[in-house]
Amino acid sequence: MTDLLTESVFTWGAPPLKFGPGAVDEIGYDVARLGVRRVLVLTDPRIAATGLPARVAESLKAAGVDHALYDQVHCEPTDESLRAAAATANDLAGEDGFDGYVAVGGGSVIDTAKAVNLLSTSGGDVMDYVNKPVGAGRAPSKPTRPLVAVPTTAGTGSESTPVCVLDILGLKVKSGISHPSLRPVLAVVDPLVTLSLPAAVTAAAGMDIVCHALESYTARPYTSFLRHTAETRVAYNGSNPVSDVWAEKALTLIARSFRRAVLVGTDLTARSDMMAAATFAGMGFGNAGVHIPHACAYPIAGMVRDYRPAGYDADEAMVPHGQSVSLTAPAAFRFTFPTDPERHVRAASLLSGDPEPDGPPAERLPGALVALMRDIGIPSGVAAVGFADNDVEALVEGTLKQQRLLNVSPRTPTADDLGGIFRSSMENW
Amino acid sequence: MTDLLTESVFTWGAPPLKFGPGAVDEIGYDVARLGVRRVLVLTDPRIAATGLPARVAESLKAAGVDHALYDQVHCEPTDESLRAAAATANDLAGEDGFDGYVAVGGGSVIDTAKAVNLLSTSGGDVMDYVNKPVGAGRAPSKPTRPLVAVPTTAGTGSESTPVCVLDILGLKVKSGISHPSLRPVLAVVDPLVTLSLPAAVTAAAGMDIVCHALESYTARPYTSFLRHTAETRVAYNGSNPVSDVWAEKALTLIARSFRRAVLVGTDLTARSDMMAAATFAGMGFGNAGVHIPHACAYPIAGMVRDYRPAGYDADEAMVPHGQSVSLTAPAAFRFTFPTDPERHVRAASLLSGDPEPDGPPAERLPGALVALMRDIGIPSGVAAVGFADNDVEALVEGTLKQQRLLNVSPRTPTADDLGGIFRSSMENW
Repeated sequence: MTDLLTESVFTWGAPPLKFGPGAVDEIGYDVARLGVRRVLVLTDPRIAATGLPARVAESLKAAGVDHALYDQVHCEPTDESLRAAAATANDLAGEDGFDGYVAVGGGSVIDTAKAVNLLSTSGGDVMDYVNKPVGAGRAPSKPTRPLVAVPTTAGTGSESTPVCVLDILGLKVKSGISHPSLRPVLAVVDPLVTLSLPAAVTAAAGMDIVCHALESYTARPYTSFLRHTAETRVAYNGSNPVSDVWAEKALTLIARSFRRAVLVGTDLTARSDMMAAATFAGMGFGNAGVHIPHACAYPIAGMVRDYRPAGYDADEAMVPHGQSVSLTAPAAFRFTFPTDPERHVRAASLLSGDPEPDGPPAERLPGALVALMRDIGIPSGVAAVGFADNDVEALVEGTLKQQRLLNVSPRTPTADDLGGIFRSSMENW
Repeated sequence: MTDLLTESVFTWGAPPLKFGPGAVDEIGYDVARLGVRRVLVLTDPRIAATGLPARVAESLKAAGVDHALYDQVHCEPTDESLRAAAATANDLAGEDGFDGYVAVGGGSVIDTAKAVNLLSTSGGDVMDYVNKPVGAGRAPSKPTRPLVAVPTTAGTGSESTPVCVLDILGLKVKSGISHPSLRPVLAVVDPLVTLSLPAAVTAAAGMDIVCHALESYTARPYTSFLRHTAETRVAYNGSNPVSDVWAEKALTLIARSFRRAVLVGTDLTARSDMMAAATFAGMGFGNAGVHIPHACAYPIAGMVRDYRPAGYDADEAMVPHGQSVSLTAPAAFRFTFPTDPERHVRAASLLSGDPEPDGPPAERLPGALVALMRDIGIPSGVAAVGFADNDVEALVEGTLKQQRLLNVSPRTPTADDLGGIFRSSMENW
């Protein structure tokens, strides 16, 4: 097959899953079954206050698994917060060390656990492992330890993926660490733990699911890349038959339950659908990749000045990841539409739940997105989170650093294209 | 949640996947990446003759992985063939031993590799691990070694599952060994290796896919079981939202490409669809389970007298697994139809590729099956493989031993029900 110029192979992986109301109560058994005897439980102060990590600790104890708790995970991890977490983990490890990790939280917590696991096993500094060209892109030198993820938001899908996303403070840029050994060995997904999520968090996290599904579904097909060798294969294959299945399924669940999960947060069926959608979208995009909206989100989040999102308990300016990825999505999908109109139209139908939506085909997906974002209270555009036209140049520059993501776009944007996307995303309605 | 009487949780797992034409050429890299340095390659004489195991060996050698070859895997493994394979593996291991396995073949080869892996690591006899009540149902006492599966038929999906199926010769019964640690750590699925499969093998193996998809799709829903504890969870959860997705996708691919893969074996697109269907169905049924058609297949295969399938190079009487599972399927789905008419009708539409097939709803799935089986040359029924009405009692008795499978049936069959299914399956057309 080496005479083929274009790719014919894709890879796919996802961790084993335990899904459903009550799943989290079995975590002690599941951790013990992995042969793990002493774990570090990672969480953040908000989740710690809900009592969930204490319930996890009880279950671990009952199963004979020793644990220590780190409850100071930083919302939207930074290189500094990851270094701090790794240092504290090292202190907590003591002489016996940890032989596993349990992450109880949203994407920030799970990603922090991935980094702590990596740094505790392979050593070195965070920047050694951050993707090139931002970091040195080094592969782990040692096997990681088993990490069990208990997501508490329906959003990131980090429980399914081999990626850790972080802000590099000195460079004002977001980047990631990506390696198969970062993937959790088990995802325990329990919709009950999301019942008390505030509406604003449900809305933002849910938009992350929407973008994961839409971006992986519209990503450059894996067959359009130049042929890799075994050594040069990347985590993000482009869209493929397996990721397509999961993206479509996630969009179907979103259409059915997203608005209701935001507006009637105690509806367990809607919460279950959203947890399933997050997991399914993670099983898709974790292998296919995401593109322009996620690439644009990185500078939006990294360059934040004084925006403080309603409904978040943030002690500093921040744009929640789910907000930042959605703000440029309508314009981005208008830009990628010509690469595969049929696929964009089908995505719009799935997302809107309307097999025959009105309007010109190119406007259907942007239209479905805007209708959803308005209904659930997402900011109206890039302007609403504090940016103006004179920020566009810097935003474009930050976006162009995300080559790993832009590489998966079905249409390669120039700086001018990205400028246009940002400018037309100032106010989506 | 412990006050709920019925189940609210399901589990799901599948190995990482490398899929596509040319995937097998990278196997040396993939095995080396697992940290494995000396592997046993298992295959059967027919596959060995195609040269594929030699290609695998070359790739291993180029990646610095030492190997030994066992090319005498028995078609449809037995307790005796597994003991023999484990003994030979032990001889070949020598002083250095193996730290991994590569299975190159159909379900028989992959299942044999699972058993060799288990017996080489945990010791003991095959019957110690065979599911109760046939065997002792013991769990492995030691971790297994990495097993990489390279399926050469589009059928069993064994590359995705934690199950090894075998004939117990002394008891004239088929049974299985089932444990998560039996699951391959990587499935390398390359449609090119199926291009030369004979039509009869393509047809039978493909019917195994069809039954995996249909049986898991119609299986008792996981929510209908009494609530498990962490300790009592079983591999076969019943149908669930994840297995449903895989089953539906497999049926869609089958509708598009099964007949063409049999009739125009060199069509790479059809072969790719069948490989994907097999893998997808495996990712579904490996977690949901299979029921009546598979349970009935066990005595059909175990009690064979002198049937020798056309197109197979069998030196003894045997009913290929894919034939034996399909012979009672039309009658079995007629029996289960009332438990969920809508789901049976939808399955029929997916399998036939016809959204609005003719005929009474209860007959649509049996009708779609019979039409397919006739087109691809499957025997017309249980009579065509050598059984008559006076065998029904023994066939029913053998079927009733498969409680692990019957437990997943959406409608529990009595002995009389099974007798009716066998009698009406003597001639499906």
